[in-house]
Amino acid sequence: MRTGVWLIGARGSVAVTSMVGALAVRASLAAPLGCVTELPELRSAAVPTLGDLVFGGHDMSTVGLVKKARDLAASGVLPGALVEAVAAELDMIEVEVLPAPGGGVPCEGSPDGRVQADTAARIVSDLRAFRDRHDLARIVVVNVSSTEPVATPHPAHADLAALRAALDLPGAVLPASALYAYAALSAGCPFVDFTPSTGARLPALAELAAEARLPHAGSDGKTGETLLKSVLAPMFALRHLRVTSWSGINLLGGGDGATLADPAANAAKTASKHRVLGETLGYQPEGHTRIDHVPELGDFKTAWDLVTFQGFLGTAMRMEFTWHGCDSALAAPLVLDLARLTAAAHAAGVVGPVPELAFFFKDPIGDVPHGLAEQWTLLVEFVRGLSDATA
Amino acid sequence: MRTGVWLIGARGSVAVTSMVGALAVRASLAAPLGCVTELPELRSAAVPTLGDLVFGGHDMSTVGLVKKARDLAASGVLPGALVEAVAAELDMIEVEVLPAPGGGVPCEGSPDGRVQADTAARIVSDLRAFRDRHDLARIVVVNVSSTEPVATPHPAHADLAALRAALDLPGAVLPASALYAYAALSAGCPFVDFTPSTGARLPALAELAAEARLPHAGSDGKTGETLLKSVLAPMFALRHLRVTSWSGINLLGGGDGATLADPAANAAKTASKHRVLGETLGYQPEGHTRIDHVPELGDFKTAWDLVTFQGFLGTAMRMEFTWHGCDSALAAPLVLDLARLTAAAHAAGVVGPVPELAFFFKDPIGDVPHGLAEQWTLLVEFVRGLSDATA
Amino acid sequence: MRTGVWLIGARGSVAVTSMVGALAVRASLAAPLGCVTELPELRSAAVPTLGDLVFGGHDMSTVGLVKKARDLAASGVLPGALVEAVAAELDMIEVEVLPAPGGGVPCEGSPDGRVQADTAARIVSDLRAFRDRHDLARIVVVNVSSTEPVATPHPAHADLAALRAALDLPGAVLPASALYAYAALSAGCPFVDFTPSTGARLPALAELAAEARLPHAGSDGKTGETLLKSVLAPMFALRHLRVTSWSGINLLGGGDGATLADPAANAAKTASKHRVLGETLGYQPEGHTRIDHVPELGDFKTAWDLVTFQGFLGTAMRMEFTWHGCDSALAAPLVLDLARLTAAAHAAGVVGPVPELAFFFKDPIGDVPHGLAEQWTLLVEFVRGLSDATA
Amino acid sequence: MRTGVWLIGARGSVAVTSMVGALAVRASLAAPLGCVTELPELRSAAVPTLGDLVFGGHDMSTVGLVKKARDLAASGVLPGALVEAVAAELDMIEVEVLPAPGGGVPCEGSPDGRVQADTAARIVSDLRAFRDRHDLARIVVVNVSSTEPVATPHPAHADLAALRAALDLPGAVLPASALYAYAALSAGCPFVDFTPSTGARLPALAELAAEARLPHAGSDGKTGETLLKSVLAPMFALRHLRVTSWSGINLLGGGDGATLADPAANAAKTASKHRVLGETLGYQPEGHTRIDHVPELGDFKTAWDLVTFQGFLGTAMRMEFTWHGCDSALAAPLVLDLARLTAAAHAAGVVGPVPELAFFFKDPIGDVPHGLAEQWTLLVEFVRGLSDATA
Repeated sequence: MRTGVWLIGARGSVAVTSMVGALAVRASLAAPLGCVTELPELRSAAVPTLGDLVFGGHDMSTVGLVKKARDLAASGVLPGALVEAVAAELDMIEVEVLPAPGGGVPCEGSPDGRVQADTAARIVSDLRAFRDRHDLARIVVVNVSSTEPVATPHPAHADLAALRAALDLPGAVLPASALYAYAALSAGCPFVDFTPSTGARLPALAELAAEARLPHAGSDGKTGETLLKSVLAPMFALRHLRVTSWSGINLLGGGDGATLADPAANAAKTASKHRVLGETLGYQPEGHTRIDHVPELGDFKTAWDLVTFQGFLGTAMRMEFTWHGCDSALAAPLVLDLARLTAAAHAAGVVGPVPELAFFFKDPIGDVPHGLAEQWTLLVEFVRGLSDATA
Repeated sequence: MRTGVWLIGARGSVAVTSMVGALAVRASLAAPLGCVTELPELRSAAVPTLGDLVFGGHDMSTVGLVKKARDLAASGVLPGALVEAVAAELDMIEVEVLPAPGGGVPCEGSPDGRVQADTAARIVSDLRAFRDRHDLARIVVVNVSSTEPVATPHPAHADLAALRAALDLPGAVLPASALYAYAALSAGCPFVDFTPSTGARLPALAELAAEARLPHAGSDGKTGETLLKSVLAPMFALRHLRVTSWSGINLLGGGDGATLADPAANAAKTASKHRVLGETLGYQPEGHTRIDHVPELGDFKTAWDLVTFQGFLGTAMRMEFTWHGCDSALAAPLVLDLARLTAAAHAAGVVGPVPELAFFFKDPIGDVPHGLAEQWTLLVEFVRGLSDATA
Repeated sequence: MRTGVWLIGARGSVAVTSMVGALAVRASLAAPLGCVTELPELRSAAVPTLGDLVFGGHDMSTVGLVKKARDLAASGVLPGALVEAVAAELDMIEVEVLPAPGGGVPCEGSPDGRVQADTAARIVSDLRAFRDRHDLARIVVVNVSSTEPVATPHPAHADLAALRAALDLPGAVLPASALYAYAALSAGCPFVDFTPSTGARLPALAELAAEARLPHAGSDGKTGETLLKSVLAPMFALRHLRVTSWSGINLLGGGDGATLADPAANAAKTASKHRVLGETLGYQPEGHTRIDHVPELGDFKTAWDLVTFQGFLGTAMRMEFTWHGCDSALAAPLVLDLARLTAAAHAAGVVGPVPELAFFFKDPIGDVPHGLAEQWTLLVEFVRGLSDATA
Repeated sequence: MRTGVWLIGARGSVAVTSMVGALAVRASLAAPLGCVTELPELRSAAVPTLGDLVFGGHDMSTVGLVKKARDLAASGVLPGALVEAVAAELDMIEVEVLPAPGGGVPCEGSPDGRVQADTAARIVSDLRAFRDRHDLARIVVVNVSSTEPVATPHPAHADLAALRAALDLPGAVLPASALYAYAALSAGCPFVDFTPSTGARLPALAELAAEARLPHAGSDGKTGETLLKSVLAPMFALRHLRVTSWSGINLLGGGDGATLADPAANAAKTASKHRVLGETLGYQPEGHTRIDHVPELGDFKTAWDLVTFQGFLGTAMRMEFTWHGCDSALAAPLVLDLARLTAAAHAAGVVGPVPELAFFFKDPIGDVPHGLAEQWTLLVEFVRGLSDATA
């Protein structure tokens, strides 16, 4: 069951860490830490192995994969020895990473007369060629590119027929992430959005996924502060403690940090970060989540949160936490998990959004539980169901 | 269903906070924050209400309940206005708080020729008189006294007949907490140990509980750092992140702080604090939990923990948290919950240790899950079962 | 040497805390904690005692002083018993707290045809009446009102003659803080700005202070995070450690929190907070200081800072701190210190800005050291000089 | 002015980091970060340059210097590229690192009939040979070996003549650190103790230093938590804030961590860590400093401190800090500074303890200020004096 993993942003830190890790783990050079599909509860013959995965992708960057991996090693994200051990194999993926069509942002302004439908067609053609070249059972397209600013609404987002018509006209109807989702679904590929960008979250694209009988998942990988919120907020709720404020700041360098320094992108990200509190607690405590770009911190991120709460008879108490995590190292194994699980879902005939993957996301699609433990239970049952379907 | 709550250590901070809170909440002067039995998922006709509870207890202290409550108000644990509002009612409980038989530690050395069986008989008699005086359906005995040092083993702990014989001889066979458990069970009362002391955790007492067809629960209320561990350790496990060290320090003033400054008591407490990690993670990370007595901090406690962990490809990451909690305010509503739930269990015919109450304890009896979410599920099902039994 | 202390914002938390404290300390009901002029190194016959101080002020609020003090006690800023002990005396100050002329913000828009010169005249007249009524040697005017937004520049700020002419015309030439400074200096009173507002920091007002032979001091009392920076930044510098980033967030409720939630005022405050780093280290590290309003926190403020630095051979290290302070309690004793020291400076004939008071300010006037230890040395020598001048 | 630096513990992390750093900085491969003698205020012709230093030492370990340096690089303490760049030069120092006489702990039990005087004679002879081999103006002996347990008192410690007599008899009169100090001073070499061990802090050794007209300095390099205390405690004192408790925990791996896990050595270290508070504040706040060994943390150390304090009218406030430092990287440049400054002191004729070096130590000799700023002023004046003496 050879499975393609097509990464939008294939030369970025998350993508390259995913590739290096997959190569290292399948060569038994490293344990599959961080990969939840490798936990006993989720092991299933229905899920493709790491060895089944074949990588490719689009990126507007031209930095070589091996070069990027060595840069990540220099900044402490990847062990240098592992990078060297898989460098030759990594270099073989190089030919499968194609320039982003339309020079990154597809068809903004359409200077050459091309319309977004053309760009989508080019992406579809790239995906089909990849599938044929490697004789793949399927390809899962995963967006791990930088976060986009909040997208401008467009009437054609509401309806698939209107969207198809609009894409044939000049102008940018869809933001890049959604154009990739459109193309992926049009090519018969499941789509996963690991970022808070628009991706497949438009009615027209939901319609397309249903029509094409494809699963899709998202959005915004839950890797740090929100992961903590998804276990701490239920703790306060189950103990009947009233959270009066929850404030936080995220300091991050790296590519995503620079993007998020843009207030519009920041707004998109912080909104998805806060959603878990209201959903889990049943009310919205005071406080905000801030994101600040501190280039010095590189791929590592420091998040600090202050939670004030009331206990019995209103007694005021508080907790603080600091999380020092490496975003790429936290994200990469989840990207591999999502690719494998979404491939298995597709094989089992799952169609539409997959709320059972809520465990992985800050801002999961659908009416799902926001506590990590319930999300885990849902996930375990989902994988068991896939196994039964396959068996 | 009038239910007695007999508190060992009835003049201590936790006991007095429990009484003030029960009086205030049932007079609608305060919301039942911190009381989990008041959450919708646990509401049940099988569980006595706060209004059903009648308080009494033993203590070697002679400080008046109202005086103690005012001291707690002065140090920020209780709102002064609430204390005044319930002072008259609190004062009426005064007559039900009896001197600890044997002057606190029962029969250590037996200076007056009395043996531990005599002390136990006196406790039984106090309990029966309380039941008769108030026409109670049952009494739940809850130990909220100071933590004892680790108890000295004695051959008679292994067998009920041997224990009964030994108690008739001079000398201290049982530590105080276990003698109270023995007396409670002998008087037909369920027993709950909210402390890490021995309590009912001896084979001879398990035999007695079975013989008397009584439920018992314990031990060591989960109010702060261990509560956090019970949600954070599962988070690391579910994400397949390897915890390499978990170190912590607890700074506390107050009575319990002074007791725990004693290295032997400290050892008992820190062992029960660390158990959750090994049970949840499946391995024991490096690191220790320390307890330091800082009188200045009063009833408030500050815990700081450092967790180091490895993610994908071994990348080293870390988190820290600080918890500033008021121990009495965290413990008191759980004491009320436990009294109510154990009474309901007794009414429903539950016999022996009640692992379904693991949600409340650092060191729960039996082979139970240590993650808070699973403990919650177990508890919800347990209460549902009680309701069905009663209905 | 009876000395007036005229507080702009006399009904605010800082002012009322200052008054209650001065009354309590001089009645020997409390130790003078936080008052640096009470340290042995700064005790001097040249400095008026707390008993010499007579309070008055302006405010647009009409909440009574005793009411405000009780509110502060309820929120934990002042001990309730102290407030009651001085309530009668505090109430006697009530008549000396006058409505802010012009309804707070003086002459914005001049609806009644009055010009800013009229408002200034009214302030001057209030000050003179206060001096006469109490037979005061002098009055020090201290601005403790809420932080203003960054002021709009005006050509008349550069020159005293131009300013006087402009104040006679309709329109708001000066922001409120500067109009108070203008009026204070015009009335022969030294002026202290405890806020980051404009105050006396305009060339025209420097000219006025020189002409009137008056000292003035400012600005922005150093009460929390910046106080820590003023000892930590020198530590890194003296140890030749390179600070690579310094990021922080301040969470605060209370009146000032609400004001600072306004981005323009926020900008003024955070700029003065960051200045100490560049001045002490000789370079500007990466990172920002954020301010967030969290009403729940009340008069208490939580600041968290992350400092990353490089040591020998570039090794990357880090420190974090959290500061939980009560702003009013930190500010009030410094307000009393500044009133007393500025009065002494005036008595000794000091004219113009007083850089020797840099110890008290985030953003001190003049070319002064920014390390706390050097500021302290400067202050000790200054007070010694005043004593010599007086002796 | 070729100057020998003889390191007791020459194969340990601190020693090897010092050597690698000295080689790298003098080859202009790295900036002298962390070296305070390279700050403008301390630059002086009287102080030998890094290029003047010649390294040697004793150690009971036999791990090669280059091997040790590569291990340090692997654990993130040293940059790997720097280690390789100086590996050849480092390897040339290898011949100057001799086995510790007596197999490490000198003459404990004297199995071979040798007495401590013999061991001392062997050390003296090693030092003289080193001096002659390299034609050194002088050698500074610096103890950077693991912390000893608190030493057993011995009557001969009080008097030089008695000590000399006792050393000729079987048995361990002096702990290792003091025997090295005795030998160093006997060989005419200034002695610096960078550890909390006994070193030269015995009356008999003070007598020897005076007789030999030699300077000596110590003890216990101030690299982390105590460094912070030396700026934070003065801050509280200068602001007249009352510190009510100061509690801390140090988590450390590495060699020193293992040694300090021994309660007796721990006691020595924590006592010197706490001294700064009493000396700076004028009273001893509540609280303790703990040290825990967590091997996982390697050469990096995490210290967490909680400080509670009272401000105006007794308002309770608090601060916390976490320090994540690399001990070897913090210590090594100070070792180089101390060797250079002590050599300069010797050249200028300074005799006896050098309190002006208090800036570098947790537990400085003599009646010295404990605030870092005052220690700095003392140091700057001292170096200026040396320059004048030399000029």
